[in-house]
Amino acid sequence: MTPWPRGVAETARLVAEGRASSEELVAAALARIEELEPELHAWAHLDRDHAREQARAADAIWRRGRPVGLLHGVPIGVKDIFDTRDMPTENGTVLDAGRRPTADAFAVARLRAAGAVILGKTETTELAVFTPGPTRNPRDPGRTPGGSSSGSAAAVACGMVGAALGSQTNGSTIRPAAFCGVFGYKPSHGLIPRTRMLHQSRALDHVGLLARSVEDLALLGDALAGFNEGDPDTAPAAAPALARVAAESPPMTPRLAFVKTVVWDRAEADTRAGFAELVGHLGDRVVEETLPKPFDRALEHHGTIHEADIARAFAVLARRGGDRLSPRLMTMIERGRGVSALAYNDALAAARSMTLWLADFFHDYDAIVTPAVAGQAPVGLESTGDPAFCTTWTLAGVPAVSLPLLSGADGLPIGVQLVGAKGDDARLLRTANWLVRMCGAEPRKPEP
Amino acid sequence: MTPWPRGVAETARLVAEGRASSEELVAAALARIEELEPELHAWAHLDRDHAREQARAADAIWRRGRPVGLLHGVPIGVKDIFDTRDMPTENGTVLDAGRRPTADAFAVARLRAAGAVILGKTETTELAVFTPGPTRNPRDPGRTPGGSSSGSAAAVACGMVGAALGSQTNGSTIRPAAFCGVFGYKPSHGLIPRTRMLHQSRALDHVGLLARSVEDLALLGDALAGFNEGDPDTAPAAAPALARVAAESPPMTPRLAFVKTVVWDRAEADTRAGFAELVGHLGDRVVEETLPKPFDRALEHHGTIHEADIARAFAVLARRGGDRLSPRLMTMIERGRGVSALAYNDALAAARSMTLWLADFFHDYDAIVTPAVAGQAPVGLESTGDPAFCTTWTLAGVPAVSLPLLSGADGLPIGVQLVGAKGDDARLLRTANWLVRMCGAEPRKPEP
Repeated sequence: MTPWPRGVAETARLVAEGRASSEELVAAALARIEELEPELHAWAHLDRDHAREQARAADAIWRRGRPVGLLHGVPIGVKDIFDTRDMPTENGTVLDAGRRPTADAFAVARLRAAGAVILGKTETTELAVFTPGPTRNPRDPGRTPGGSSSGSAAAVACGMVGAALGSQTNGSTIRPAAFCGVFGYKPSHGLIPRTRMLHQSRALDHVGLLARSVEDLALLGDALAGFNEGDPDTAPAAAPALARVAAESPPMTPRLAFVKTVVWDRAEADTRAGFAELVGHLGDRVVEETLPKPFDRALEHHGTIHEADIARAFAVLARRGGDRLSPRLMTMIERGRGVSALAYNDALAAARSMTLWLADFFHDYDAIVTPAVAGQAPVGLESTGDPAFCTTWTLAGVPAVSLPLLSGADGLPIGVQLVGAKGDDARLLRTANWLVRMCGAEPRKPEP
Repeated sequence: MTPWPRGVAETARLVAEGRASSEELVAAALARIEELEPELHAWAHLDRDHAREQARAADAIWRRGRPVGLLHGVPIGVKDIFDTRDMPTENGTVLDAGRRPTADAFAVARLRAAGAVILGKTETTELAVFTPGPTRNPRDPGRTPGGSSSGSAAAVACGMVGAALGSQTNGSTIRPAAFCGVFGYKPSHGLIPRTRMLHQSRALDHVGLLARSVEDLALLGDALAGFNEGDPDTAPAAAPALARVAAESPPMTPRLAFVKTVVWDRAEADTRAGFAELVGHLGDRVVEETLPKPFDRALEHHGTIHEADIARAFAVLARRGGDRLSPRLMTMIERGRGVSALAYNDALAAARSMTLWLADFFHDYDAIVTPAVAGQAPVGLESTGDPAFCTTWTLAGVPAVSLPLLSGADGLPIGVQLVGAKGDDARLLRTANWLVRMCGAEPRKPEP
């Protein structure tokens, strides 16, 4: 049995119905890793025996007839910035080499509670910021997979796992999903608790998800959404029912707004051409809209908040070993030290205004459609590419997905980003499913 | 009929039972004001005809037999930093002279909904910070009434009204209550929405209440507590049932912690003597406790947050007419402009730690007992006195009351401050009632 390119939801059904064992799934995943990992470097930590043990334990539970969770026996990858009680968590920096947390991150604990096998820890950029790790893009190993959730995107793209946890503080889930041609999802700010995930910025940090279909993103979102007192931006609320709503047909034809944003001039020729075609295909279902003036400063405000926040979040690391942090990160930290409380609070207030403006905007539209990235994954591993097409939506805390619907000049994927109303992730995922069908997109085969 | 020193709760019962009319109450209040206002300057705005109209309208509702609210027909004073749609709101600065809001502050709207007559607007210090207004202390007109809720405290103390709205960002309710010998209450941060109250600092601003008994504070708290989306620190929650719980006997003898805090060396001789006597009287019901080291920096952290926040909150005012703001306030704003985001967020984080530490502490104790002020109201009107005994509790967002239980060397009141667990205001008020009874305190007669 080859479980891929079957998705997580389908795989979980196979296990629940006894048509596949978790041990088989994990063996297949490890075989795929055996084959591809030497070239791709998607994994920061992988203990094959421990993965097999988890799988055998899952199978034993199934055999005893005990109830199983939504992800029972399914191997999942976890970005190496989520604490795990049974694996190291090194945050992509030598300063945390050998770090062994004593407790699971909230998201990891929820995956385990749903029955998932935590296959291993995927590579991240340095402290989930810009400086790349060793991971290569499975679609073209000469190119970056994007970052910071580099290993998670690569592992999903090449079928090592069906899904993986990522994170996003700027463009760290949407961008690698777009470059690797998988489905990426940054939920509404506060939907998934960030407890014991590497902390950069309370206002900007989000848990992110990478998978091979909207259905799988919704399933994972349902498993992870909730309240946790360790994350002050989460709230007790009704379950979002993402999978149920995402699977529905929209009650009326979705209305989309094509928004170029202030960074449109960075979009490459094939991206522009792809969007012209997409917008043409959508016809009167899409209207081009322009965001109001204050959105022009989104990148500046994001930088102010992000740099001021990492100056605090990484202060101890910088003191302990600033010389072992990348010069690029140290420059950001230095700049962050110089941010005034006035500028910082102005930026936060501007972000809140954007969120409020968008809440009204989404009375008229179901989603914004806009590029996820400037173009195909850039050649080389020195950079993870430009996050600018994600920044505004991260700052505003609105949910976003990247859908692998376009191809660039070299046949490599370019993600289409859909952005929805804060707190209405279910509608966004339903609209995403509709758009995928509209484009007649088939699930992509694993690469290479 | 003389409604004072009857309290708000009792007066409201008289009206509800038809034993007093609102018009009589307002007439009595206006007579008292006629007599004392020329010396005390408690009111920033008073429209006698408009007050009488409100009273007649309340009486008409009663006569028609319609249901009446908890404060039906009762005249209440409102600090002139709460927006009122029918009266000016000048915030204690010439820069807002003649300002006429178009909508009521949340707290004002709630008072009206409970049937209260908004008698007028009480004097505040400049923008509710330090620079005094014209109000004098009714217990000794040569002394400050404290601030910034100067007019509210004075008006309650001399029987012009039974209760008044104040606010507290440092010691602006507890301190004037203590200096004027009335009951003051700063609720838990987030319990009462601050919507359309003058904004200084999201983390530090609180609505405050001044009245003549714990019962009345609880009644007002019940009328005002709630959720409003205009205040991001409020949350939908069950009503706190302050009046019901405050009126109960404690199920077991309350345990108090006598805490001197780092500012104890500012306490005057009569305050020290008063507390020695009080602690002696309480015997084994009180234990002296010391706060851990991080609390020593509470005043510094408060100043960092407060100054950085007013630099933003008052930025437009300072640009429009910085020369018409007091030099003391402009100095604070200037310092605030220089605060780094790093120091600001460190201070906020320290405040959150203090709140968490206190949450544990109040598993062992029902309340902290500590001075509300250094001593009697200082002589002169140049300063509103030292808020330092309030700063820690404001920073931590925990509820506090000032009880007029001690007298100083000149026979003037010194407030005893009780501090409780955040979110457990009802227990704090019940404990306060118990302490008042323990001390055999009679309600004070209005002064002079």
